[in-house]
Amino acid sequence: MIKRLNIRTNKRNELVDITYEIRRLVRESGVREGICVIFCPHTTAGLTINENADPSVRVDISEHLSSLVPENKNYKHLEGNADSHIKSVIVGQSLSLIIENGDIILGTWQGIFFCEFDGPRSRYVLVKII
Amino acid sequence: MIKRLNIRTNKRNELVDITYEIRRLVRESGVREGICVIFCPHTTAGLTINENADPSVRVDISEHLSSLVPENKNYKHLEGNADSHIKSVIVGQSLSLIIENGDIILGTWQGIFFCEFDGPRSRYVLVKII
Amino acid sequence: MIKRLNIRTNKRNELVDITYEIRRLVRESGVREGICVIFCPHTTAGLTINENADPSVRVDISEHLSSLVPENKNYKHLEGNADSHIKSVIVGQSLSLIIENGDIILGTWQGIFFCEFDGPRSRYVLVKII
Repeated sequence: MIKRLNIRTNKRNELVDITYEIRRLVRESGVREGICVIFCPHTTAGLTINENADPSVRVDISEHLSSLVPENKNYKHLEGNADSHIKSVIVGQSLSLIIENGDIILGTWQGIFFCEFDGPRSRYVLVKII
Repeated sequence: MIKRLNIRTNKRNELVDITYEIRRLVRESGVREGICVIFCPHTTAGLTINENADPSVRVDISEHLSSLVPENKNYKHLEGNADSHIKSVIVGQSLSLIIENGDIILGTWQGIFFCEFDGPRSRYVLVKII
Repeated sequence: MIKRLNIRTNKRNELVDITYEIRRLVRESGVREGICVIFCPHTTAGLTINENADPSVRVDISEHLSSLVPENKNYKHLEGNADSHIKSVIVGQSLSLIIENGDIILGTWQGIFFCEFDGPRSRYVLVKII
């Protein structure tokens, strides 16, 4: 019961709301109670949960991370995306969510975001439901 | 088997030690071996594990996060808590712990902390034991 | 089914690749499908997933974290490792991985790293397979 969710990103840095798609995968699985692990198999992207009501929140998150980890610095990795790797470490690559009554539990204002730090690219995440 | 733990915070930024309460919930569940997922349903708070012996450690954590993500900056989100959302992303919203012999495994110096970044407020976390 | 992996670190700040050892533990467990939780019981270390192809990536990660959280600052914790505790919070202490066909799923460029922030020391991580 591993599902794959494909994601198309459009900018170098972008938080993509994948809440609807994750909820759909969980509902389709038929699992009523359990755990949902979402895993990002990329080294220049990540996963997080935050507000999906006001779209300016995700812009602030993305822009502030870029101020903490600038794109251009004297990095040793020479592919031009050392900052993307560092942001991935700060944000994290896996989420563990709780399933109840056939749906994941999220707070009122919470959405699940794929964090692109080296786009635009074709990406995917893996979802395991137990 | 989802338990709710209510938390009252007293400051804007505060790390609240919830180790005792989480351990009690796990013991009461009667589960001897498994996994415990703790989930924070708030977008301006988080969960972490760190030292709970010297209380100055949690002060340093909280204050240094505030120096990395200042409260007042030219953020786009206009509710005055953009910094709280960004800190939540940096710290994370879920923890996966290992249960053995009816108790969660923690290192000698480790405690579980609810990280308040926009208090004081009434908060809660959800605990799933499998 | 909890396994312990001992790790010897050699520097104050160092990312140690533990991918091979984790994969071996999962294969030896005989579990074909499931979840693998890796837990770091230390308060001045962490766990992350990132690129293990170009070794300069882990150097950039380690050095940039040190620039965000300097070793010497007016911290309240007086043991000289307040920075190590703060880095541990930023990186995180547990990973949830997906097991398929008897092996953990990782992206092409991904490796699992133990993040030492207060070495050199003898460390360990715990691995629970369900």
